[in-house]
Amino acid sequence: MNRTELIAEIRRKKSFLCVGLDPDMNKIPDCLQGEEDVIFAFNKAIIDATLDYAVAYKPNLAFYEAYGLKGMVSLQKTIDYLRRLNVFTIADAKRGDIGNTSLKYAQAYLDPAGDFNFDAITVAPYMGEDSVKPFLQVPDKWVVLLALTSNPGARDFQNLEITGGAADGTALEKHLYEQVLRTSASWGNADNMMYVVGATRAEFLSDVRRIVPNHFLLVPGVGAQGGSLEEVCRYGLNDDIGLLINASRSILYAGKDTDFAEAARAEAARMQQQMQTYVR
Amino acid sequence: MNRTELIAEIRRKKSFLCVGLDPDMNKIPDCLQGEEDVIFAFNKAIIDATLDYAVAYKPNLAFYEAYGLKGMVSLQKTIDYLRRLNVFTIADAKRGDIGNTSLKYAQAYLDPAGDFNFDAITVAPYMGEDSVKPFLQVPDKWVVLLALTSNPGARDFQNLEITGGAADGTALEKHLYEQVLRTSASWGNADNMMYVVGATRAEFLSDVRRIVPNHFLLVPGVGAQGGSLEEVCRYGLNDDIGLLINASRSILYAGKDTDFAEAARAEAARMQQQMQTYVR
Repeated sequence: MNRTELIAEIRRKKSFLCVGLDPDMNKIPDCLQGEEDVIFAFNKAIIDATLDYAVAYKPNLAFYEAYGLKGMVSLQKTIDYLRRLNVFTIADAKRGDIGNTSLKYAQAYLDPAGDFNFDAITVAPYMGEDSVKPFLQVPDKWVVLLALTSNPGARDFQNLEITGGAADGTALEKHLYEQVLRTSASWGNADNMMYVVGATRAEFLSDVRRIVPNHFLLVPGVGAQGGSLEEVCRYGLNDDIGLLINASRSILYAGKDTDFAEAARAEAARMQQQMQTYVR
Repeated sequence: MNRTELIAEIRRKKSFLCVGLDPDMNKIPDCLQGEEDVIFAFNKAIIDATLDYAVAYKPNLAFYEAYGLKGMVSLQKTIDYLRRLNVFTIADAKRGDIGNTSLKYAQAYLDPAGDFNFDAITVAPYMGEDSVKPFLQVPDKWVVLLALTSNPGARDFQNLEITGGAADGTALEKHLYEQVLRTSASWGNADNMMYVVGATRAEFLSDVRRIVPNHFLLVPGVGAQGGSLEEVCRYGLNDDIGLLINASRSILYAGKDTDFAEAARAEAARMQQQMQTYVR
């Protein structure tokens, strides 16, 4: 799904909701525990229940890898199912390695002929340009690069103040996460890159928008992690909306029993209703 | 395998060689292409051929994920095979995410009851403390944290100069990679953490040793990437050796035909012979 198609879907559904598919066997309702593939059964029910209100789905790969080979089969079924729908798909993988290795990760999660044909993959920036570019070279696919995350540990390094000159001789931004935005923006463009910017620090979004006014931002942390949708929209919206707001636990585990899909749908609908006032 | 056992193996074999298992279907010799599981057949032959000269093996997960579910089966067979030998095993995964997600990655690659029971996993530091600690909480297992990598992109962010105070109020190191060492060293200890420090910039190893004198360093970049073993040993050795030198392509693809295992063994032996003078 390209940028034009994504924006069209956002306007049609009046929603920029991304549902994070983080299946946890300890939280999946008992009524599904007899299924042959519990994780896929859960995901399919959640997808079907929320499809009217969400434009994107983001399986978090750790929650599949944790169940070994069986979990990877559930992931494969999930992406196959999503590909049949008109939704944007993100492999939340946080990968990144030297060039020849990132090329293999790109092949793993972006190759149309592979088992896991996602539209986009989340990538960690620490290893720099040659760790990110192989993902950007896959036609019609996206990198979602970590910039400012929503967890407490984000302060340890992302918010460090930097000084001196960049490797290419240009002046530097104030904080590491801003420099990550500045440097990486030249590796791709707003048609093949997005950034992860956590909602738990919405005021930082105005600094982010100064550096990358046109890129889509994938925003975790609204919902279970306490961020405010209104704040995120105030600082983060651009003319093309430019936001995907992710919610995982608050939707997946809204209900704990046979009503889980209905409760997930209600929570997705609640978020979409908040969002629709911002979609013009 | 714990630190004492690892050091004992290093002294017994007079080697601190780690063989990177990066199987690439385009490079695996034709004579194996008829095997039912080509990747595992290749890995097994390489392991058998190099076992006298190597103390550690490091499958690079991208090279398995790139082949989808089939690749993950090959990875599972490979780690099962390695577990039967007295070697240190590293999942080169470069993972790292918010706490509850890193916990799932730890379960995926360090859990003795899981499909992929490695001794250690490589982790990316960008998301900070809560992204790393869940791995450290698995008993008797290791984190190998990225500090200074061997690729060109390492300059983009790892070498940025930083200023101001750290989140905990202490004074800062000069470069980001040094601050990653300084901050993260308090999250674990030399019995459950190692660091990735690339050999292509061996002179930086003296700065690394100033900050983490006792930790083991996993050093890529000797061999195919051009680093010098002698330089790495000059700056990086400590009283417990404290180094694992990784070689991947230079061993795996030393031969291109039916002699591939023999050629791999010869290359591993050549490296071990260089190393033995440093093992006391």
